[in-house]
Amino acid sequence: MDSNQQYLQYKNIVQKIADVKYASAVLQWDQETYLPVKGNIFRGQQIATLSEMAHEQFIDNKVGDLLNDLADKNDLGHKEKRNVLLSLEDYNRSKKFTPAFIRKLSVAVNKSYHLWIRARKENSFSVFRNALHEVIELKRQEADIIGYKAHPYDALMNDYDKGLTVEITDALFNSLRPSLSVLLDKIKEQSPIDNSFLHRHYEKDKQWEFGIEILKRIGFDFEAGRQDTSEHPFTTNFNNKDVRVTTRIKENDFGNMTWSCIHEGGHALYEQGLPEDQYGLPLGEYCSVSIHESQSRLWENCIGRGLSFWKHNYPLLREKFPDQLNDIPLEKFYKGINKVHPSLIRTEADELTYHFHVMIRYELEKKLIEGSLATSDIPEYWNEQYFKYLGVKVPDDLNGCLQDVHWSHGSFGYFATYSIGSLYASQMYAAIKKLTPSLEDEISSGQNQVVLSWLRQHIYQYGRYYNSGDLCLHATGESLNSQYFITYTTEKFSKIYVS
Amino acid sequence: MDSNQQYLQYKNIVQKIADVKYASAVLQWDQETYLPVKGNIFRGQQIATLSEMAHEQFIDNKVGDLLNDLADKNDLGHKEKRNVLLSLEDYNRSKKFTPAFIRKLSVAVNKSYHLWIRARKENSFSVFRNALHEVIELKRQEADIIGYKAHPYDALMNDYDKGLTVEITDALFNSLRPSLSVLLDKIKEQSPIDNSFLHRHYEKDKQWEFGIEILKRIGFDFEAGRQDTSEHPFTTNFNNKDVRVTTRIKENDFGNMTWSCIHEGGHALYEQGLPEDQYGLPLGEYCSVSIHESQSRLWENCIGRGLSFWKHNYPLLREKFPDQLNDIPLEKFYKGINKVHPSLIRTEADELTYHFHVMIRYELEKKLIEGSLATSDIPEYWNEQYFKYLGVKVPDDLNGCLQDVHWSHGSFGYFATYSIGSLYASQMYAAIKKLTPSLEDEISSGQNQVVLSWLRQHIYQYGRYYNSGDLCLHATGESLNSQYFITYTTEKFSKIYVS
Repeated sequence: MDSNQQYLQYKNIVQKIADVKYASAVLQWDQETYLPVKGNIFRGQQIATLSEMAHEQFIDNKVGDLLNDLADKNDLGHKEKRNVLLSLEDYNRSKKFTPAFIRKLSVAVNKSYHLWIRARKENSFSVFRNALHEVIELKRQEADIIGYKAHPYDALMNDYDKGLTVEITDALFNSLRPSLSVLLDKIKEQSPIDNSFLHRHYEKDKQWEFGIEILKRIGFDFEAGRQDTSEHPFTTNFNNKDVRVTTRIKENDFGNMTWSCIHEGGHALYEQGLPEDQYGLPLGEYCSVSIHESQSRLWENCIGRGLSFWKHNYPLLREKFPDQLNDIPLEKFYKGINKVHPSLIRTEADELTYHFHVMIRYELEKKLIEGSLATSDIPEYWNEQYFKYLGVKVPDDLNGCLQDVHWSHGSFGYFATYSIGSLYASQMYAAIKKLTPSLEDEISSGQNQVVLSWLRQHIYQYGRYYNSGDLCLHATGESLNSQYFITYTTEKFSKIYVS
Repeated sequence: MDSNQQYLQYKNIVQKIADVKYASAVLQWDQETYLPVKGNIFRGQQIATLSEMAHEQFIDNKVGDLLNDLADKNDLGHKEKRNVLLSLEDYNRSKKFTPAFIRKLSVAVNKSYHLWIRARKENSFSVFRNALHEVIELKRQEADIIGYKAHPYDALMNDYDKGLTVEITDALFNSLRPSLSVLLDKIKEQSPIDNSFLHRHYEKDKQWEFGIEILKRIGFDFEAGRQDTSEHPFTTNFNNKDVRVTTRIKENDFGNMTWSCIHEGGHALYEQGLPEDQYGLPLGEYCSVSIHESQSRLWENCIGRGLSFWKHNYPLLREKFPDQLNDIPLEKFYKGINKVHPSLIRTEADELTYHFHVMIRYELEKKLIEGSLATSDIPEYWNEQYFKYLGVKVPDDLNGCLQDVHWSHGSFGYFATYSIGSLYASQMYAAIKKLTPSLEDEISSGQNQVVLSWLRQHIYQYGRYYNSGDLCLHATGESLNSQYFITYTTEKFSKIYVS
């Protein structure tokens, strides 16, 4: 068989596996949006079966033989070659897991997700503890199965950003911590910003309409996606023409919906921009979770918490909520939405203190995976660290270690990518600004096209062609450099907190 | 391996296949409720892959060997024995199809469904014609693949009701036609009923709320199901704890939503009542489409168009729509909702003329499948028959041969089961009445429990244990007898049309 025929065979196989994986994603999306309560048990089983099936099909020896054959070919195009090599890497990694292990993890994760929901209702970590412990033990086994050089947590972080290690992350966070602390100390010396207007009563329906309009304005294509509500906002996709975001709405906390909406919108723009002709193939997938996070954070923070963005969008917001905002001029609104204030909930944190939330989770997970912290000690450790780094007392588990969905999903190794994503975002935003000095003016007049075009050209179209580091180098001309984030935040917050 | 171990192995295999089939059903449900427009192409491919996969796994020779082994065992319980025999029948039938044929049909059906939607928008059968023709040709091939004794259409009808044939159906319809004609002629002599109040303006939101309340009142469990809206109302289930109905709402046609809602509710009660411990096994599935239809029609017509039902529910309806119904006394409402009037749309037809809609489709499909009618001649044939039997002139395709979703789904052989379902429904309702002479009083006071209990005991719990005919005999003490339907309608409409 010649290379082209073999490549077609490979494409056909992995696209069918993608069909199964995306079907499973539809079932998961449904589970978090519309599933009737009693439907949960069978749904868990159905998702587990699909995961197992996709895995079994992918680790078939015939697939391995085909991939190894193709990897030796010299007459494939550069994209085809890259797809094959990435699939072979994925294959070799997947081959390490037995179908029984995959199923065990899937069942454990399903159980822990539902117990996390119940634990939140009962505001009690202990409801969740045993199910979480089971997941952690399986993740520790997973690290051993995958293998690692320096730290078992490296093996898990690699799932979200290939090449990311404890060593790299420690270095990044050790450089971030002091800069953030200096900036925070300066801010503490200023009088606090009043943003109580964000906690006036904002009607649910109108918030929903505003969120939809903002998604449209940043470029989300509602013919190739939709928004619904769920317990915890997320983005999922079943192909680049069906990308779904969710949000949650609190009537006394306008910011909760708005920036989660822009955040998920940023993720969604990336998914909608992935190359359609690479459906199911590595080049049709996102580069890494860090890069995915850079996309959400670029829109949420660099743009969505910027003065230029609100110059254009504040009139619409005021139109929707005249009673709540007529006495709040734009400048006051802008300062209010950028108030820096150590707090309890990660997803509601400001742009600066946010990274302490992440660093606490990162350190905690490292300890859980290396076995130096017991599952039952999570709340105590969590509360200590929050007091140490953020100076806040955690009143209960709901406002503490039960706040994030990630662990219930088994997503250990994920959190660091939020901060790393922010670093990438600042660097990309600086690159766009350098190319288009009129950027802020364009955004002020509602023209986000320049941003979207740059992202399409430098990020979206590549899928997994480059890894995170190379993509950054290729797109911005420079390797990841935390100085961009430090400069961006220092400039922004020095202006906001000038007394 | 002993029988119990082998049975567990069998159960494990078919339940995993059921997981895949139900996952496909979730994707189809989503396709008709929430899918963004551009998501259609990949969705079709994803559904096709799952169908093919479920089929491939089921027709594995190992499954056949296991089933044949188990079929010879003498130490299985009667339910286990029945499951094995039914699965073996299904296996032998499925084994006749190649995966390529299944995929071809699935792709053709997906394409024809979308062209049906477009054809309806453009009100033009020709938009749909070629795609439909492809489906018909595949269904003709399917009949040949399955095999048949007397008529190719028998092979297709068997998919919906095992044992049903052209011979049986012709006999039933030939006995139904004259009785209906006599009754209709008598009605024509009476002055027509005014039901224009049904076409006043009924607000969408309030109709929706009323539909939800009616579903609750007939016993639908919203913790094990939900209602949404779609182009064409349907019921689907992913297990007996997740049963979903859809409805459509027309603001100037109150009846459209209400009786489709009760109809689908009847289907859904059946699905919610199937035995949970038989998930994925034949005994966890409905008996036949005819019996399924008997359940929807029993609730829609015998109960939902009865005076007793509205004695209880009319006050709620009037509360929701005082402006529309305050001048309409219950008696007038009851007559209005039972107005007999030949019309164009099957789903909006009255209880009597409805069966002509079915019989026309039945005759037409027979001709298409035996090859005596060309796809391109459908509109002409359709319009002629409607004039001949119902005396109505079909103004366009939207009100003619484009009205039903079934053909676009490849569901040839289905329509007859609607009428046969009505026959079963009347016979069951008569059986319940015989056991509980106070039935109408109970329904009048909102107590549907007696009906639901009877159905649970005599129908739901059996799944596919009996075929339609045996189930009817077992439940009512008698084989299917069309006289029950004739008596029921004659009594009911003679009272309504007494001048």
